[in-house]
Amino acid sequence: MDKYLITGFSGFVSRHFLEFLDKQEEIVAVLGIDLHEPPFDINGFHHLKCGFERLDLLDKEKIQNAIYQFQPMYIIHLAAYSSVSFSWKNPILSFQNNTNIFLNLVECVRLLRLNTRILSVGSSEEYGNVTDRDMPLREEMPLKPLSPYAVARVSQEMLSQVYANGFDVDIVITRSFNHVGPGQKDIFVISSFAKQLAEGSMKGARKLEVVTGDLSIIRDFTDVRDVVKAYFMLLKKGRKGELYNVCSGRGVSLSDILKIMSDYVGVEVERRVDANLVRPQDNRVIIGSNTKIQSEIGWKPGIPLEKAVQDVVEDWKQRLPDK
Amino acid sequence: MDKYLITGFSGFVSRHFLEFLDKQEEIVAVLGIDLHEPPFDINGFHHLKCGFERLDLLDKEKIQNAIYQFQPMYIIHLAAYSSVSFSWKNPILSFQNNTNIFLNLVECVRLLRLNTRILSVGSSEEYGNVTDRDMPLREEMPLKPLSPYAVARVSQEMLSQVYANGFDVDIVITRSFNHVGPGQKDIFVISSFAKQLAEGSMKGARKLEVVTGDLSIIRDFTDVRDVVKAYFMLLKKGRKGELYNVCSGRGVSLSDILKIMSDYVGVEVERRVDANLVRPQDNRVIIGSNTKIQSEIGWKPGIPLEKAVQDVVEDWKQRLPDK
Repeated sequence: MDKYLITGFSGFVSRHFLEFLDKQEEIVAVLGIDLHEPPFDINGFHHLKCGFERLDLLDKEKIQNAIYQFQPMYIIHLAAYSSVSFSWKNPILSFQNNTNIFLNLVECVRLLRLNTRILSVGSSEEYGNVTDRDMPLREEMPLKPLSPYAVARVSQEMLSQVYANGFDVDIVITRSFNHVGPGQKDIFVISSFAKQLAEGSMKGARKLEVVTGDLSIIRDFTDVRDVVKAYFMLLKKGRKGELYNVCSGRGVSLSDILKIMSDYVGVEVERRVDANLVRPQDNRVIIGSNTKIQSEIGWKPGIPLEKAVQDVVEDWKQRLPDK
Repeated sequence: MDKYLITGFSGFVSRHFLEFLDKQEEIVAVLGIDLHEPPFDINGFHHLKCGFERLDLLDKEKIQNAIYQFQPMYIIHLAAYSSVSFSWKNPILSFQNNTNIFLNLVECVRLLRLNTRILSVGSSEEYGNVTDRDMPLREEMPLKPLSPYAVARVSQEMLSQVYANGFDVDIVITRSFNHVGPGQKDIFVISSFAKQLAEGSMKGARKLEVVTGDLSIIRDFTDVRDVVKAYFMLLKKGRKGELYNVCSGRGVSLSDILKIMSDYVGVEVERRVDANLVRPQDNRVIIGSNTKIQSEIGWKPGIPLEKAVQDVVEDWKQRLPDK
């Protein structure tokens, strides 16, 4: 029976990874680790035998014990403080809860001499200071991280490579671009739009003011259900010490996404720009190349963006209290 | 009166920096910080008013208090776990005592809103995986760090740039190549040769077995007294957020250095290679370019390598007990 240890177990991506695993034929064992209790029933799956331990990845001794007891075949490391803006407010906490927690984790695996394969999840933020002409961003491009969060992720990635090449720890690395999907918190842009539209639509509004940041920026969104499939395939087929962009390869403006959503909901949108949501340092365009993961791993995204954003709106309709 | 805070105060480079400062005209105030008591008399200088606090840079509250009380104009950050081989033995301690201590320091300066200028000392190890054709190494080359230590230094450098550009903290950055000079510990190659030769010469030997690693490797050595002058000039004239190689620009093989030394001491050397001292992952050649620091800052090394290694031998003759 395959054994997966999942850090950041109680979060958005983990939830979808569990649902993906649950749809496979085999029964697998899962140990979830998180600072917070999961917001779902760990006994509610068909093909998963799930355990959960609440612990802090900064606590080396406890992680080491948990890993030793469970002896995972795979570790999917989703735990992170993934907010760029938080990293500007508290760089130390951001760095510790990205880089130091990862180092603790891989060091435990090294010291226990396990054959565990680890997925180290990184971010498109690592590319940093790029221009429109650099698109699509490819794995071999130089990194110019612009925020404390981005530095923490590049540090994690460099540590991954040193552990893979210098210590022979089996690590596969991603740079993951923007995700979209049901269950995401409304601090993320598409989820925020969807929530506002779902609320308006449930109140029967025909016209709705939606609060936005800069709608002209272009990003590369992948449905989280495709992302977790990529993670699964990378654990099975990725090369040790290699890094792979996980992205759609397609850029869409936030303006176009808002249009798709408002057409779907059937309300007319009046856009109100909140200056606090406009990030002065942001790149205008970020689009990744997924050539490497397509050709080496055979993964490509399957869920169209239109379907993804519709599912996010429907999800908010279910999450919001009836009015 | 200028005020300097020096971390890693009790170490080799700090000692030479203090001697450099002491030779200047002005009286300056110095606060030294280190985990260990200094092995010299802090009241033994002519132009320095020296204080010392024993503290751990991982202890944020204590650093913040020390910085707030002293209000330094300059911080010269020399504290580091600078051994590559130790970083392979304990990557977590190496990372914490290079990257995390630096982050604590710059975050204190940011939170206190001081105008302090900080010198962030990095390493030629950051270049990592290079070939002979890449020589001399220039600041704009891509970094491919190969050890936990090298990753920790690149992380420190990227944090320096984010703090300088994103938070407007006044940081100047170095990548420092190999140092040589009186007072260095005998875990460093030239100091180790010098100690063995000084011992032999004091015993009146005409022929001596010297234990070495791979003598064919070529490195770029600068006398530590030139290095501290570079640090002083970078604090005065360096551009914020910029990084500068500190190096001689000249490559010398360890074999040639051993020859210079044995000629000076007047003993015939029999070389015995200790396999434990040969590092399989080491680059054969590392030579830096000092064009940037020469043209922008006006620094260039003044002490010839011959003089430097002779002084190291003489220093060991004084440090060793009479036989």
